[in-house]
Amino acid sequence: MNGAESLVKTFLANDVTVCFANPGTSEMHFVAALDNHPDMRCVLCLFEGGTSGAADGYYRMSGKVAATMLHLAPGFGNAFANLHNARKAGSGIVNVMGDHATYHLKYESPLRGNTSGVSQAVSHWTRTSEDASAVSGDGAAAIRAARSRGGQIATLILPADTAWMEGTAPQIAAPPPALHRSEPEKIAAAARALRRPGAALMIGGTAGHGAMQELAGSIARATGARLMAPLQVPRLRRGAGAPCMESLAYPVEVNLTILAEVKELVLCGANPPVSFFAYPGKPGTPIPPDCRVQALCAPDMDIEGTLHALADAVGADAKTGTERVTLDLPDLPSGPLSIGKVADALAVMLPEDAILVNESVTSTAPLLQATAHARGHDLLVTTGGAIGQCLPAASGAAIACPDRSVFALSGDGSAMYTLQSLWTMARERLDVTVLVFANRGYQILRGELANLGIEQVGRNATRMFDVEDPTLDWCSLAKGHGVPAARAQTSEQLIEALKNAKQTVGPYLIEVALP
Amino acid sequence: MNGAESLVKTFLANDVTVCFANPGTSEMHFVAALDNHPDMRCVLCLFEGGTSGAADGYYRMSGKVAATMLHLAPGFGNAFANLHNARKAGSGIVNVMGDHATYHLKYESPLRGNTSGVSQAVSHWTRTSEDASAVSGDGAAAIRAARSRGGQIATLILPADTAWMEGTAPQIAAPPPALHRSEPEKIAAAARALRRPGAALMIGGTAGHGAMQELAGSIARATGARLMAPLQVPRLRRGAGAPCMESLAYPVEVNLTILAEVKELVLCGANPPVSFFAYPGKPGTPIPPDCRVQALCAPDMDIEGTLHALADAVGADAKTGTERVTLDLPDLPSGPLSIGKVADALAVMLPEDAILVNESVTSTAPLLQATAHARGHDLLVTTGGAIGQCLPAASGAAIACPDRSVFALSGDGSAMYTLQSLWTMARERLDVTVLVFANRGYQILRGELANLGIEQVGRNATRMFDVEDPTLDWCSLAKGHGVPAARAQTSEQLIEALKNAKQTVGPYLIEVALP
Repeated sequence: MNGAESLVKTFLANDVTVCFANPGTSEMHFVAALDNHPDMRCVLCLFEGGTSGAADGYYRMSGKVAATMLHLAPGFGNAFANLHNARKAGSGIVNVMGDHATYHLKYESPLRGNTSGVSQAVSHWTRTSEDASAVSGDGAAAIRAARSRGGQIATLILPADTAWMEGTAPQIAAPPPALHRSEPEKIAAAARALRRPGAALMIGGTAGHGAMQELAGSIARATGARLMAPLQVPRLRRGAGAPCMESLAYPVEVNLTILAEVKELVLCGANPPVSFFAYPGKPGTPIPPDCRVQALCAPDMDIEGTLHALADAVGADAKTGTERVTLDLPDLPSGPLSIGKVADALAVMLPEDAILVNESVTSTAPLLQATAHARGHDLLVTTGGAIGQCLPAASGAAIACPDRSVFALSGDGSAMYTLQSLWTMARERLDVTVLVFANRGYQILRGELANLGIEQVGRNATRMFDVEDPTLDWCSLAKGHGVPAARAQTSEQLIEALKNAKQTVGPYLIEVALP
Repeated sequence: MNGAESLVKTFLANDVTVCFANPGTSEMHFVAALDNHPDMRCVLCLFEGGTSGAADGYYRMSGKVAATMLHLAPGFGNAFANLHNARKAGSGIVNVMGDHATYHLKYESPLRGNTSGVSQAVSHWTRTSEDASAVSGDGAAAIRAARSRGGQIATLILPADTAWMEGTAPQIAAPPPALHRSEPEKIAAAARALRRPGAALMIGGTAGHGAMQELAGSIARATGARLMAPLQVPRLRRGAGAPCMESLAYPVEVNLTILAEVKELVLCGANPPVSFFAYPGKPGTPIPPDCRVQALCAPDMDIEGTLHALADAVGADAKTGTERVTLDLPDLPSGPLSIGKVADALAVMLPEDAILVNESVTSTAPLLQATAHARGHDLLVTTGGAIGQCLPAASGAAIACPDRSVFALSGDGSAMYTLQSLWTMARERLDVTVLVFANRGYQILRGELANLGIEQVGRNATRMFDVEDPTLDWCSLAKGHGVPAARAQTSEQLIEALKNAKQTVGPYLIEVALP
């Protein structure tokens, strides 16, 4: 058994069963090893940004670590942006990056690059295997690292000769180290704070869905505190049946209003809320100056244990229950489209238990507002703010949850970053409905320029904000990737297209032509 | 004048007049400053890999440093692969990477990342401006760094507040440090070696075109040595009228044959030739064991001065002249296409002084063979082996040389990496004819697997090599980006498409359907 084979067997022995791949010439033995193991699902992405984004979406929906296979330094560079997003989401990923054979590194070959340097700039854990006998142990250590602290980016660099020389038996990863727990006195203080007027419990990390979210809801009900979430929760359950929560937004001003009355902010699984960017004369955080903040539990600590301890301290349990969102659907819209009508149509037609992957940027606020009372669903967002996450993450989510409908909501500017993922959706027959909001440009940049107090926009700025001349034709782009598509300019066309998408096996793209 | 304004003025004062841009929210003041200076040409790319590849192609054809504008850490990550290629080409580029305002970096905001870490993994020079007053000086230092050692990657990180606070007057970049020259005794030894039987002069770096290439040709004629080039010359003049040269190829075996009779190898502007990858049982370098190698001048040294000294030492001058390639065009092909017929059609129809940007990977050998005696042209190749360079570099070359026809030859797998550059070609009305060789997969990987001695290909490997199910439809992909296109399955269709491309203002894409 060579080193590559020992790694694949180590992956399978540890229940790492999906590999998102863009192999290059330095990973050929790994490809050959995968070939001998059809129980490993290999998903080809036509660009490495597709692999890392898919692994992120897969982890968020399955809780399982996936592998990516990347090519040397430049290939890893291509995956970098979505690894950044995954890092901010706390997603566990094992990247396998090939490298030259150790004895070939002395040459200035075209592809020689700083493999460990580019990895360390975004990975929590980086290791280069010294020889083939180390590969299975290093693979197990990478899986353990990816599962540690609530989910991390682990990168294993495999010089080509470690793949083809004789390896050792597959290894089982040791359990990750115990998560750091909140101190009892902090829990007691948080419990007291939550009972005071103007209290809010802000949850994040892995607490945005499932039993932890339920528990947080019961803590809120027992104490009377508001239950809140930051903008970037990796996976947030919302819509009918979900615990009632308030979410922060993108604009600084909106968040200042949301938090204005909060006097006691208890953070559990969430970092202190901050503004996306600093702007001259605007605050860097929306937390009111007179608000006391208790950072009870960071996202990489034991959120579950902390929530249980907090529930005990405030006397909440399963019987306490939680406030729940009720189903409240708008009417189906008609006539010319606006973003509000798109949001209404989506809210009405969203099936039970759908997965929304949102990177619609400037279209986000109305979409989230309208779907807040739609059928229950999970929401995945671009946790690291690096655009180009939506289509890859939607692919990974669909692979994690083959029985659920995935809706990828993307701005046109952001969808262009990783449009190659459309092909992967088609090949894997993924049930993804892609809505591209064609506002023909980076509309958010116009807003950001205004945020900085700059009102006048001339030719150079206009030509960097607007994706016009020519206009992108998303139906053709979809067709080129093998994905059926339709363009919607009216509400009726949009509703028809959403119905067609539902009846289509595999992906379907709708270009939403906004005025 | 704020810091951003001082940087733009510094660029213009130093003849940096093109900026390939993908601005994000942290670069808004820079955008505003560009807006005030219409003499700076801003070229929007819809993905950062397009900016770095375009800056590389622009430098290779103009010898001028271009700026790129990139967004924080993930945006730089997206540019990484083509910066790797540019680094290997010795292209001078100044990257401007925004970052959070210095006082905002204390927060764990979504986009906070390791800006200097990811830069240092590929840049020769990285600096973060400390405050606005430092920006113009740092900008001048970045330009100097980009112009040093024959061309380098320089990255200037600008925290947002350094852009909006008060800056200082624009600065002129100091001249780059003098290039390291070869020692006289080495030149004398090289001159002796070149007169011996079995001698070869291998040039690279900036010596692949223009006066330096001519000089190398006269040295070869004066000494009787063979004149050779490695596979990765950043810009190589070839075809009719160019000095006769032999070029190395991709396969190890071919290079072993080419170099078999070489007993004395003098390197000027070229690194010692190496194999792209190590393979079990194959040599890492094609240099014969009994060949003496004289590394006279590395690519980052004074190639021009060394060639002049060498010419003096061997008694070559302008009157010596050089052997030149003669025009020898094949017949126009007819009937069903093969790669050989495509190569013939291209050779016949290539206009004088065209620019070929080649990333056709497995189709390369026949294309280069057929065009060797075509009309004189410049060839740009993927110097760092990171695919996705062709379309961006073709854009940059076309911007550098608006009066020349650019031909981008790309495999389908590699074109997919940065297909967004098609849009930039359309918007800027660039005279680029894109030939995509649709062999529906990463055919080179099949070859590489065989190179490693692995013959059997199963389902997982097949699904990672083949871009089928669905097939990519390049005419639709082009149309989606606003680029007219045609599909050629016969020689007649290809010839017709090449004629249409010539008559079209702006880009034109031809999907070459290979059997």
